[in-house]
Amino acid sequence: MNIEVCYTPQAYNLFHKDESIVVVIDIFRATSAIVTAFYNGVSKMIPVATVEEAKEYQQNGYLAAAERNGEMIEGFELGNSPFGYMNNKVKGKTIAISTTNGTQAIEASRKASKILVGSFLNLDVLCEYLAEQKKDVILVCAGWKNKFNLEDTIFAGAIVEKLTTESGFEITCDSAIASKHLYNIAKQDMFEFLSNSSHRNRLAKLDLERDIKYCLTPNQCPVIPVMEGKYLVKM
Amino acid sequence: MNIEVCYTPQAYNLFHKDESIVVVIDIFRATSAIVTAFYNGVSKMIPVATVEEAKEYQQNGYLAAAERNGEMIEGFELGNSPFGYMNNKVKGKTIAISTTNGTQAIEASRKASKILVGSFLNLDVLCEYLAEQKKDVILVCAGWKNKFNLEDTIFAGAIVEKLTTESGFEITCDSAIASKHLYNIAKQDMFEFLSNSSHRNRLAKLDLERDIKYCLTPNQCPVIPVMEGKYLVKM
Repeated sequence: MNIEVCYTPQAYNLFHKDESIVVVIDIFRATSAIVTAFYNGVSKMIPVATVEEAKEYQQNGYLAAAERNGEMIEGFELGNSPFGYMNNKVKGKTIAISTTNGTQAIEASRKASKILVGSFLNLDVLCEYLAEQKKDVILVCAGWKNKFNLEDTIFAGAIVEKLTTESGFEITCDSAIASKHLYNIAKQDMFEFLSNSSHRNRLAKLDLERDIKYCLTPNQCPVIPVMEGKYLVKM
Repeated sequence: MNIEVCYTPQAYNLFHKDESIVVVIDIFRATSAIVTAFYNGVSKMIPVATVEEAKEYQQNGYLAAAERNGEMIEGFELGNSPFGYMNNKVKGKTIAISTTNGTQAIEASRKASKILVGSFLNLDVLCEYLAEQKKDVILVCAGWKNKFNLEDTIFAGAIVEKLTTESGFEITCDSAIASKHLYNIAKQDMFEFLSNSSHRNRLAKLDLERDIKYCLTPNQCPVIPVMEGKYLVKM
């Protein structure tokens, strides 16, 4: 089995293979929020590309989440802070969600046969599942507006590290090699490693240190969200 | 001054700023060959996107170089091996050139106000020149068919390292941070670092170890090729 890392949604078509499993990654904070939501009993989520679509769902009675540039959009119940989803109000609900990068990455990989949602919060269960499937894996980083970012890359590196050393996966692209190197530099103190990254600085201005620390703490939510038609559901 | 790294030609439009200086990078081997060519007395080069365009120039009496997937295309005088350009036959000549990745990166950044050609062979003179200009810099890696590659990235990292530590440049994107980290892992033995990279393996099959070692040896050709209209010339 091969494992590849696609650094931005823009590049997905270069990596697509019909049989591969895609893992979408947006550490700060969409995929961390989605994993948290399912761990806290959300029933379904509907990832949509535009704020307008999220609004439409809201008008039809759904809970709706919308974030752009790190901030919750006015008029919505939720943004992409994981802490918003640790709440009895979301239990059993279906939530439409649109974010700056994460839901764009889901959109870009829509033709994949299977799309999973990854974050540090579900790292181990995700790797166990991938190891059992015996299929090629494409890790799709959401990045920042189609530019490479560090936090998604080091998480991709954590998966590459686990699947190559423990489960016999092979690396066939340079971005997987680079991700693994960067994870190995970062892993002793990811918070510190990311201290100068562009997105950390973006979030620091918004006073989101608590979110950042939470999103970097592995295995707090051992669930795997998976796309089924237009819905994300818990596997 | 800011320095940014664009990992693939596909992403160039996300980085473009009218006033920035672009450095195009294709270590294995187009930009290494171009720098070598000017150091060995080539007068002008005409980078073209397609093999057909190179053929047309050839039919009009120019020397022409064409490479795809690491190999020289039949019927052309030259490919992208730097050793082909260390030759009295190229002295004073104008050469049309089309390669798999390098000339595509030049094509993608065509609207930049200034496009320079970078490789380990001209690392120091290039950095000195960039430091003097006091302008923002975008390093455009050719990659491999619009995918990230390691050799272009570590060279970008070498420039980032020099310009940030010696000349006061600031890093504003995560790809520049990552490139610098990867260069610092690689620099003790770049040949060894790249031994598992996708392109090294591609070239190993073509028996190009001599080319690889040459392309990784800094400062053998202290010249800077620059685009002027449709021509590359020596600055």
